[in-house]
Amino acid sequence: MTKTSPDSPLFEKVALVGLGLIGSSICRGMRAEGLAGKVTGYARSEETRKVALEIGLVDDVAATGAEAVKDADLVILCVPVGITGEVMGQIKAGLKPGAILTDVGSVKQSVVDMILPHLPQGVHLVPGHPIAGTEESGPRSGFAELFHGRWCILTPPATTDDAATAKLTEFWTQLGSDVEVMDPEHHDLVLAITSHVPHLIAYNIVGTAADLETVTRSEVVKYSAGGFRDFTRIAASDPTMWRDVFLNNKTAVLEMLGRFSEDLTALQRAIRWDDGDALFDLFTRTREIRRGIIDAGQEIDAPDFGRPHGEEGED
Amino acid sequence: MTKTSPDSPLFEKVALVGLGLIGSSICRGMRAEGLAGKVTGYARSEETRKVALEIGLVDDVAATGAEAVKDADLVILCVPVGITGEVMGQIKAGLKPGAILTDVGSVKQSVVDMILPHLPQGVHLVPGHPIAGTEESGPRSGFAELFHGRWCILTPPATTDDAATAKLTEFWTQLGSDVEVMDPEHHDLVLAITSHVPHLIAYNIVGTAADLETVTRSEVVKYSAGGFRDFTRIAASDPTMWRDVFLNNKTAVLEMLGRFSEDLTALQRAIRWDDGDALFDLFTRTREIRRGIIDAGQEIDAPDFGRPHGEEGED
Repeated sequence: MTKTSPDSPLFEKVALVGLGLIGSSICRGMRAEGLAGKVTGYARSEETRKVALEIGLVDDVAATGAEAVKDADLVILCVPVGITGEVMGQIKAGLKPGAILTDVGSVKQSVVDMILPHLPQGVHLVPGHPIAGTEESGPRSGFAELFHGRWCILTPPATTDDAATAKLTEFWTQLGSDVEVMDPEHHDLVLAITSHVPHLIAYNIVGTAADLETVTRSEVVKYSAGGFRDFTRIAASDPTMWRDVFLNNKTAVLEMLGRFSEDLTALQRAIRWDDGDALFDLFTRTREIRRGIIDAGQEIDAPDFGRPHGEEGED
Repeated sequence: MTKTSPDSPLFEKVALVGLGLIGSSICRGMRAEGLAGKVTGYARSEETRKVALEIGLVDDVAATGAEAVKDADLVILCVPVGITGEVMGQIKAGLKPGAILTDVGSVKQSVVDMILPHLPQGVHLVPGHPIAGTEESGPRSGFAELFHGRWCILTPPATTDDAATAKLTEFWTQLGSDVEVMDPEHHDLVLAITSHVPHLIAYNIVGTAADLETVTRSEVVKYSAGGFRDFTRIAASDPTMWRDVFLNNKTAVLEMLGRFSEDLTALQRAIRWDDGDALFDLFTRTREIRRGIIDAGQEIDAPDFGRPHGEEGED
């Protein structure tokens, strides 16, 4: 790990493999903070590579992943977790000894398992997961402020050099995040309940609503302001990314889903048997959690997410 | 039904029974549009009555519901649906022949069933449901724009005078809403999927997350930006109101919940057996529904509900 002077960027060369929402937001954040001397990008789609150059996300694009990572001091994989192993196979020959290799995947244990067999000697693996995103996808959807005030979790294997973890911590801190280090298995359990299962049930109810015979799709759309529309936001997230999340965090997702269904069955029974007290008690408890999230700075303190009222939907 | 001149208000006297989020928003909307000559309010809690006067929601408050509705041309019940019958028992003696009686409950068939036995001769019943709200409660939480661009569903019984329905349609239109008339049973089915079941599963997952032994509540709060925090918003809604919704729309909620659980079990099985195509297909289909809601003006066209990024949660 070379020490950088106050004026030199944190990394001389950064390579991004994948230029979607997260990759393009990192590009914009690095530029805003002056974190990289040079940024090289690679994306499988030629169209994405063209757009990334056009809108100035990167200094140059490479024709292959291996070429992109050549001489890079920091390599960030921003691809759906399911192709992590495949991408490693393509880039490993280009990775330079001393480089830090990280990713942004929403699952960590299986990412570690996919990367380790390919990891060249002397390359420092520090997997990462910024807990930030929107329902948009693609190179044009990124913005520098995406990570501000959000947590980024790093899950370095025990064999990783502490200095590499410290340097990546500095990187994410400069992008505006708070950083926490934890082991990958615990990460996967925490995210199963805070992110993966919520996404699954949002996808599920939107699917259920679309398939009804007694209520038309146009009625579902018209009267969605009663609550349903909140679910459609996360059910509009990237399908490839989320398919891979569920397939790669199977154990934790199935465990949390089992608990969710068990609790839902109890609620269903409370409704059937007119147990209003059981409903009221739960509904009172859950209010506090929202307050905790607002107090922790992870949500704005305004009703209805601060959505404008009386400005949209009118003639 | 008396015809009003362009200069006179739509109703000479309006009485509101219940002054929470919806009641106080109606007060503010009526004032903004000049829809009422005089507004009298009643709330069970003395504190609420005091606040309503203090902040100018109403012209006066009455000590009882029966007193509040005396001489009113329009009476609006803004109470949890479960006490509709009890409130009717209290006010029926005060209702004036020719008055329009409406409500704002999220369930319609059981409201009709609770009101009809108490309905005095000559009073026009037009139950209503504005599809609008926030997770806030109480007299201070209302605002005039809440109903702008939102749908309001009216469910008049077959015996109700068409002129009464037309006049209430005019009232809601002036408050900024689009009005639709449907039968109460169909309303309850539509709302079960667009509102009631979404609330139930939001309450449920927030409860499941709070009860884990392996993930702390502070971790749930910290990493909630991955999706969970969206669910906590609707799980922060008024507990009494929502208990009553589930107990009074039991049949439709249990039916929709059955379908939701069936679909969720199929998804769970797809994850267990690595059926990535089934997941990908659903996740692609659900994206379109979001687009439809934005196109219909029921949601803003901005990522992440237009939540600010980089303004909150920072030092």
